[in-house]
Amino acid sequence: MNELETRLLDEILGIRAIDCHSHVPPESPHAQSLGDLLGYHYYTELAHSAGMPADAIDPRKAEGDRIAEMVTRLDALNNTIQYSWLMEAARELFAFRADRLTSSNWPELAQVIAEAARQDGRYRTVLAKSNIEKVFLTNRFDEDLAGVDRSVFVPCLRTDDLVFHLGDAALRHRIAVKTGIEVGSADGLRDAVRGLFRYFVQHGAASAAISLPPDFSPEPPDEAAAGKALARAVKGKELSAEEAGALSVFAFDLVASTCRQFHKPFQLMIGVIRNVYPAGVHGGRDLLSKRGSMIDYADLFRRYPEVDFTVSVLSMTWAHELATFAWIFPNVKPSGHWWYANIPAHIEHDLRARLEAVPKVKLIGYYSDMYKVEFGLPKFNMYRRILARVLAREFVETGRLREQQALEVARLLLRDNPKRIFGV
Amino acid sequence: MNELETRLLDEILGIRAIDCHSHVPPESPHAQSLGDLLGYHYYTELAHSAGMPADAIDPRKAEGDRIAEMVTRLDALNNTIQYSWLMEAARELFAFRADRLTSSNWPELAQVIAEAARQDGRYRTVLAKSNIEKVFLTNRFDEDLAGVDRSVFVPCLRTDDLVFHLGDAALRHRIAVKTGIEVGSADGLRDAVRGLFRYFVQHGAASAAISLPPDFSPEPPDEAAAGKALARAVKGKELSAEEAGALSVFAFDLVASTCRQFHKPFQLMIGVIRNVYPAGVHGGRDLLSKRGSMIDYADLFRRYPEVDFTVSVLSMTWAHELATFAWIFPNVKPSGHWWYANIPAHIEHDLRARLEAVPKVKLIGYYSDMYKVEFGLPKFNMYRRILARVLAREFVETGRLREQQALEVARLLLRDNPKRIFGV
Amino acid sequence: MNELETRLLDEILGIRAIDCHSHVPPESPHAQSLGDLLGYHYYTELAHSAGMPADAIDPRKAEGDRIAEMVTRLDALNNTIQYSWLMEAARELFAFRADRLTSSNWPELAQVIAEAARQDGRYRTVLAKSNIEKVFLTNRFDEDLAGVDRSVFVPCLRTDDLVFHLGDAALRHRIAVKTGIEVGSADGLRDAVRGLFRYFVQHGAASAAISLPPDFSPEPPDEAAAGKALARAVKGKELSAEEAGALSVFAFDLVASTCRQFHKPFQLMIGVIRNVYPAGVHGGRDLLSKRGSMIDYADLFRRYPEVDFTVSVLSMTWAHELATFAWIFPNVKPSGHWWYANIPAHIEHDLRARLEAVPKVKLIGYYSDMYKVEFGLPKFNMYRRILARVLAREFVETGRLREQQALEVARLLLRDNPKRIFGV
Repeated sequence: MNELETRLLDEILGIRAIDCHSHVPPESPHAQSLGDLLGYHYYTELAHSAGMPADAIDPRKAEGDRIAEMVTRLDALNNTIQYSWLMEAARELFAFRADRLTSSNWPELAQVIAEAARQDGRYRTVLAKSNIEKVFLTNRFDEDLAGVDRSVFVPCLRTDDLVFHLGDAALRHRIAVKTGIEVGSADGLRDAVRGLFRYFVQHGAASAAISLPPDFSPEPPDEAAAGKALARAVKGKELSAEEAGALSVFAFDLVASTCRQFHKPFQLMIGVIRNVYPAGVHGGRDLLSKRGSMIDYADLFRRYPEVDFTVSVLSMTWAHELATFAWIFPNVKPSGHWWYANIPAHIEHDLRARLEAVPKVKLIGYYSDMYKVEFGLPKFNMYRRILARVLAREFVETGRLREQQALEVARLLLRDNPKRIFGV
Repeated sequence: MNELETRLLDEILGIRAIDCHSHVPPESPHAQSLGDLLGYHYYTELAHSAGMPADAIDPRKAEGDRIAEMVTRLDALNNTIQYSWLMEAARELFAFRADRLTSSNWPELAQVIAEAARQDGRYRTVLAKSNIEKVFLTNRFDEDLAGVDRSVFVPCLRTDDLVFHLGDAALRHRIAVKTGIEVGSADGLRDAVRGLFRYFVQHGAASAAISLPPDFSPEPPDEAAAGKALARAVKGKELSAEEAGALSVFAFDLVASTCRQFHKPFQLMIGVIRNVYPAGVHGGRDLLSKRGSMIDYADLFRRYPEVDFTVSVLSMTWAHELATFAWIFPNVKPSGHWWYANIPAHIEHDLRARLEAVPKVKLIGYYSDMYKVEFGLPKFNMYRRILARVLAREFVETGRLREQQALEVARLLLRDNPKRIFGV
Repeated sequence: MNELETRLLDEILGIRAIDCHSHVPPESPHAQSLGDLLGYHYYTELAHSAGMPADAIDPRKAEGDRIAEMVTRLDALNNTIQYSWLMEAARELFAFRADRLTSSNWPELAQVIAEAARQDGRYRTVLAKSNIEKVFLTNRFDEDLAGVDRSVFVPCLRTDDLVFHLGDAALRHRIAVKTGIEVGSADGLRDAVRGLFRYFVQHGAASAAISLPPDFSPEPPDEAAAGKALARAVKGKELSAEEAGALSVFAFDLVASTCRQFHKPFQLMIGVIRNVYPAGVHGGRDLLSKRGSMIDYADLFRRYPEVDFTVSVLSMTWAHELATFAWIFPNVKPSGHWWYANIPAHIEHDLRARLEAVPKVKLIGYYSDMYKVEFGLPKFNMYRRILARVLAREFVETGRLREQQALEVARLLLRDNPKRIFGV
């Protein structure tokens, strides 16, 4: 790392970030134990992929046994970026000094974590140390948001269930409990979704979000077909693939139109296939396919010019399409680097390509996608380092940006753009 | 940039390039005004993408107002490579010294441009300064080529309309006016296309060109089906998708076979979808999809071994296929870096991959695709810098090429290959 | 190359590699002549692609004429990585000192090669010099393995014919000759495949292997349909595409299940389309398409959790999928960089991405795919250099691995992983 890169990184580490997508549980945002950190699906799935039987970490086993098991597995994956997140969190947040986690030293770290967990407002301390100002949540539609600490957390309405599982009676019952509306028609669904949005917006929500399979195609909705499908579902009928599809397309469009009504962005996370490997560990069963194309979303982007779509893609084969759609469509904003695309090789390439072709005011640099606030620091720091590298090597050293302009770009990506786009 | 890279770049800047694809209008090749530069679709579409309403630059508005509007928008996109083209052109061709274009300094630049525009042979001065010897045009089939300044410009027959719009009576009328042939049969079409080629070749044309959607598949033509479709079109019938497809496949093959007859290369530009975003600014409405595959062109390459196909692809997902097809098929020549692929992140990767696996005598390094000659300098210089970087880092420093060999590669890519392949 | 990279490379050059995939003919493993080196399809196909008529190297011509022809063609491709393999082999294995092969100096090299070829155990000398301990072969199912020099070679059962050509009577006859079983039913095929495996395993085979077209989908087999298709084939009927497909899917599954029975890995090489360019030179007619998806293999990976699938992909568009599948599925092991993906630009990117996200114990770094042992040295050295670069720049310099840990990764990729996975 040369002087320029070091200087840029220093400044970039000082930018207070907005983290617009996470899975932090508001009632338990920080790790209570080392087991909470090692239980992050990245570690359990990589350990399993490297040979650990899935039942070695069965939740019915004692936490100490599960931790001990996981610790013996870490060496097999110490090359991964995910491993580096763990060690950086241990070092920076828990003053852990060893450079490996071993069977003999893990109890020491476990104790420090457990003690820290009991500190008042621990998660706020962690976020302050991570230089992250706000963290978005991903809330179930019927989650009680009253207790959310809005000084640091921003609710976000997760709409996966509403779009893909309306045929399920239990799901519709949850809607009825939350909204008072028994959804049996297109109009009923519209009222229910509007009610949910109202509740969420009243509690500070800044966006809706959804994860989508690679073959989803958000065509113009057919309200009559969706209504008929809903009516059949209410009668207890199993929906055909076609009916379920019509219902999903309608419900998806409804979410988009409700985003328009409430002036909220819609976070699209495109490309996941659920449960590809059912024998895997919890959280480590989903994968992706390179099929599909962003061109299937063009009609959506045309239908809702007033809605900001912040878009993440899971397959690297979609990366170029995303950048080009953001280059042309005012309402398409590339957002971060998601899950299987969230490793430095891909981030570096994507970031460079976006910065070279998409107006800087449109890019949401990064979000953590984390489940416990402790991972915000190493994940954002990974991104900050890549950002410093790309800005130094491709923009400042090539004379395309002066150093101060490069830092302005960094501030937009980490902070100002998400603040403006999500209105926080 | 280390000494080796600097040394290579110095030499590479001295190579007189052949620019085998542009949209320069021969009757007005250089910018008359700053508005001509800021009206390049890259700036208007990026400004619109960053928030400028499309009608802010309605051509019915005064040019000064449009320029003033665009200037206020530039800061939002100063990170893009396209912005850097504008500033480099202003600096190198118009001695503009400020490092930003602002509301207060743009009139100064506008004045210099307007004055320069009045100089005799201004476009030749610009091209000489850009170290570009020849610039290919992209001419409509019924364009009058008599006035083209063939000391610097090389006509090229654009065949998009001939292949995709034969069902359109107005188009057929234009053919009739130009060739004297009322196209109503396959034979008539063959005669008309041959006539157009003859005219073009007589006026110095060096190739035919076409841009193709990603799902186009140049199958062996069905002359009977095409003839039937033409006959129906002549009777005023609307063609079905199947009929229109058969006609396009036939017409495309006809262009290829006429290229064979006249010993001219066929420039294939694969992957654009037109009018994806109709609400966009002029020139900023087309996009791409990653669907399709070069394997669909294999039969074409087999059918016409005597025709050089110089091929550009719009989606980065096609880049590897293109390099491998050029590696195997003698008549496939990768050509430049087109439009949404024409940014340094992609050029650098593509260029390295092509240089590592495709014989150097087959690569057409770059073309400008420009609409005014002023963009030749910054676009070619961008490419020259990337070429110097790749040759230095991956070929000379690794010991695979000596410095003089690397420079020979550069001369082939920028000059000798297009000269030989297009016979100019 | 900085000091760290040089230091890492020095150590990496000292690791004795296992080469788990080649096409070395066990009865003639080393080059008898310069013609054997220049006859490698990479040189003939690139020379042809650069303009040499295919019949210029017709095998009926005198070898000297063919060599002379090829030598005149080499300059056109001296930029390619393949050319660098040739020159490195000449330099390191035959003490050839000129830095180009020319019409005047090739006879000198030819003589050295011919003399070396007569040395006793020449191929063992070459492999020792290349620091390669074992080389896997790719044997036809009816190959006689008795004479294989198992001190350096490891047989591998190639199953392409068994899976894709069972409809062919001559093929079934070869099976009958080798196994004594006239394959006419699913059970008969099962017995025959088991018999072939038994023979191969008895002769030291460490795996089965197959190359697959990009659209192959290894669905759960339909034994009845496959049996019916076989029965029809035996009666001399031409199989329909559907019947042939059912038979292939069944036979493929049978190979996988027999791998399970014999505890052997299955090498999947996905993505080749045969004979795309029939007018090409021998070995230079196959290509690829970017179509297809690894998701089609998910069911296979679920059905055979006990089988290690070592997977190579031919299209770079599959690279991200492969890394993610290896990240999740314990039985998916990314293996090397195959054919059209075996160039530094792609290796470097792929290697970095795999190292950042897949446990190090799962990665098979490289194999040579060579036809003569002389290419092991330059191909593995190319890989060793890229490995040193990636480890230095992305792992050690970034502080993610200490130098000794990086070298442990290198040993796993080059040696320990293939030894453990293939049990050699």
